[in-house]
Amino acid sequence: MNCPLICRYLGYLLWVEAGCMVPPLLIATYYKQGDAPSFLFSIILLTLAGGVMSLCPVRQKRMYGRDGFAIVAIGWLLISIFGALPFVISGAIPSPVDAFFEAVSGFTTTGASILQKVEGLPNGILFWRSFTHWMGGMGVLVLMLALNPNGRIGSNGAISILKAESPGPTPEKLVPRMDHAARILYAIYCVMTVVEILFLRIGRMPLLDSLIHTLGTAGPGGFSNKNLSVAAYHSPYLELVIAVFMLLFGVNFTLYYFLIHKNFRAVLHDEELRFYFGTVAVSTALIALNLCRSMPVPVPEALRQSFFQVSSVITTTGFSSTDFATWPFFSQAILVLLMFLGPCSGSTGGAIKSVRIVVLFKIARREVAKIIHPHSIYRVRLNGRAMEEETISSILSFFFLYIAVFTCALFLILPDGKDLVTSFTAVAATLGNIGPGLGLVGPLGNFSGFSPFSKLVFSFSMILGRLEILPVLVVLAPGCWVKSRG
Amino acid sequence: MNCPLICRYLGYLLWVEAGCMVPPLLIATYYKQGDAPSFLFSIILLTLAGGVMSLCPVRQKRMYGRDGFAIVAIGWLLISIFGALPFVISGAIPSPVDAFFEAVSGFTTTGASILQKVEGLPNGILFWRSFTHWMGGMGVLVLMLALNPNGRIGSNGAISILKAESPGPTPEKLVPRMDHAARILYAIYCVMTVVEILFLRIGRMPLLDSLIHTLGTAGPGGFSNKNLSVAAYHSPYLELVIAVFMLLFGVNFTLYYFLIHKNFRAVLHDEELRFYFGTVAVSTALIALNLCRSMPVPVPEALRQSFFQVSSVITTTGFSSTDFATWPFFSQAILVLLMFLGPCSGSTGGAIKSVRIVVLFKIARREVAKIIHPHSIYRVRLNGRAMEEETISSILSFFFLYIAVFTCALFLILPDGKDLVTSFTAVAATLGNIGPGLGLVGPLGNFSGFSPFSKLVFSFSMILGRLEILPVLVVLAPGCWVKSRG
Repeated sequence: MNCPLICRYLGYLLWVEAGCMVPPLLIATYYKQGDAPSFLFSIILLTLAGGVMSLCPVRQKRMYGRDGFAIVAIGWLLISIFGALPFVISGAIPSPVDAFFEAVSGFTTTGASILQKVEGLPNGILFWRSFTHWMGGMGVLVLMLALNPNGRIGSNGAISILKAESPGPTPEKLVPRMDHAARILYAIYCVMTVVEILFLRIGRMPLLDSLIHTLGTAGPGGFSNKNLSVAAYHSPYLELVIAVFMLLFGVNFTLYYFLIHKNFRAVLHDEELRFYFGTVAVSTALIALNLCRSMPVPVPEALRQSFFQVSSVITTTGFSSTDFATWPFFSQAILVLLMFLGPCSGSTGGAIKSVRIVVLFKIARREVAKIIHPHSIYRVRLNGRAMEEETISSILSFFFLYIAVFTCALFLILPDGKDLVTSFTAVAATLGNIGPGLGLVGPLGNFSGFSPFSKLVFSFSMILGRLEILPVLVVLAPGCWVKSRG
Repeated sequence: MNCPLICRYLGYLLWVEAGCMVPPLLIATYYKQGDAPSFLFSIILLTLAGGVMSLCPVRQKRMYGRDGFAIVAIGWLLISIFGALPFVISGAIPSPVDAFFEAVSGFTTTGASILQKVEGLPNGILFWRSFTHWMGGMGVLVLMLALNPNGRIGSNGAISILKAESPGPTPEKLVPRMDHAARILYAIYCVMTVVEILFLRIGRMPLLDSLIHTLGTAGPGGFSNKNLSVAAYHSPYLELVIAVFMLLFGVNFTLYYFLIHKNFRAVLHDEELRFYFGTVAVSTALIALNLCRSMPVPVPEALRQSFFQVSSVITTTGFSSTDFATWPFFSQAILVLLMFLGPCSGSTGGAIKSVRIVVLFKIARREVAKIIHPHSIYRVRLNGRAMEEETISSILSFFFLYIAVFTCALFLILPDGKDLVTSFTAVAATLGNIGPGLGLVGPLGNFSGFSPFSKLVFSFSMILGRLEILPVLVVLAPGCWVKSRG
């Protein structure tokens, strides 16, 4: 492991975070609710710490895959710790564990909260909470690459970092230079963000609210500045805008790049995209049918509620337009399944990702075909291209790892004595970066009832989920810290 | 697909089932409770149907893997349908769907019941219910191979059938001839069965009861002739005997063969066996601790209850010595986890099997190692031998298939409107061939509250679980029934 290099990159990362605290500082200064000093102090601390770390003398500039994984895993831990500072200093969340939980929940775009009500908090703090969603959505290290101060980050460093932080099994190479790719992604991301703000403003949502809800849609987190989340606005128009944008941010961003370059064929024939929209359509229909039959709800209302909640959960956002913890069990179970599924790879969403599910079913079909015709050779194809056996095996392993991590986390929090539905969905909602679950952690509930230990387990699960497990395991592996042979 | 050959083998299978109905017929005749004619009629029907099917003219004697899978999948469906006849004819279970559920539950060694109380049933019927466990435990087709009338079943036929019916990823080749191997396995099985009966008789359990409980331990089903299951005897000795034998029947039978041949090294170093006993020890300790802390239970009592229930669930038997549905959530969750785990491959138990879990963790470790040292080559080793990549990939796929089938079954039964814990554990308990779950299907509950459609889904899940999914999928695949090219 190339420790000096890792240290220097982490220093840059803290500078990026310091820069990201300027907008909430401005908002805090404007509203004068007493939270501005907490941001100022945090910025100074971040700049100093970043400065010290970036001074680290680097002798060996070559960067290996494992170094990229380590930067990402440690980097996410660091920015969460520093990101929690404004919460603690301003007194909004006095407990350090709670503040850390909230910061991790923000950066990982989970949106699970320990706050029992948010409406009394200063606006700067509320904006920072949601701004962390936006940064974490596309990736804080991708942001660092996009900024790439004076081209200090070399190309092989960029690719290992991008690989480790990007969601999904295979980040496609858009353009040869990785910092260019990062800039293209962020440009699309910014444009979509601005468009959503405009649409929400048309629906007469107040400016700060539209900023906060857009940031929580783009980075699919779901922190709101209302206790009732989106339900507080009683506006079908706003719900529809947010539902549609949640789905759009759940699409692989590479496809937007293709759209800009008029490669419509690639978009239309993308198997993951079809599966993703197909799942949304089927789930919406099934839940709407179930709601109509079991509750006294008219069809359009059932469709509206169902569509919003399906979009919110499959994209791992976690906004709520109604209390789905009171829905019939069948509808609840569909939402729990969607918590595991997640949106497209290369989007801002979490969980397992649609492409992996598509490939897993293809692998299962191949297992059957192998028995029927043992002498034929079957290759798994995605979008017409044969996949590498290596990729297939890593998708299969990821599925197991996801379930294994889920199970471990569940057993660590069960001694808290919460009921099985609460515990199960709390872990699913944090590992999948969704936010609310069912039972005590439903849309009207929160995570404040858990012990500090469980809150740390949830924080760790959120980071594991956001980074897709492997980077964290690599850093924890004893063999990883043996001196680099390179 | 070689249909005439499949038909003939299925005919033999029905003869075997006819033979297996002779013991319950004798018991029914002895006790004179009016159920003897139902067995007599079923035997006649089975003999006739078997006779007609075995007359099928076979031109092509060569048997392919897919034919073996088809024989096993269709065979299990057939014996369950015919096995349900005595229940319906005797009037013990008048509904055909319920009787089919009960027969499938018997043969697949699940032990889930739709009966609200069993104590009023005739003894012949009770014995038949438990005898199906014993037949299904080691495999009805393995039994057919062991009998192999006049050596009519060729060697390549035997290996494909054994492969399809044996639990676990890799049936080891004990001896070159497969019908010999089947006979060895059944000999060990019979000896262990007799020994358990003797031990139960020493504890003064009535003869019929010891027969029934031994059959339900050997084929880890768990049907009892008492409403309260093993708890009815209030005897720690009997509980201990049954718990120990449950564990012994959960060991890979190949290891007993090694023991007989004094190959102690292979047994002691078997990684699956270590994992299996390790899991039992850790789970027993954790549950006992949890029981002592949350309920007013003394330590020895907690250990006794915990050891019995852990053994019962990990071996997928499903006997109960207490109502574990009233245990604290943490203990319940451990039992649910064990429902997925299962005992050793090559044993009589169900679920995923310990060896697969061991290998899955090794695969996960390899994924991490590959990132740390990308240029090294890692092979997954089990018991010191490097595994084929093909086997690794099939274990990974099986894990996904198991979770996928679980999810599908869950969504098919959810419209019944049972709560999430009942529904979740009912599917886990049927797919894993355990028997009782939690909630309404807990140790004191039963499956009678579900709709006929859900009961068929459960029946199908039990067969899928017992045959480890692939044989059933092969038969359902459209490509399977295309005329054989061989």
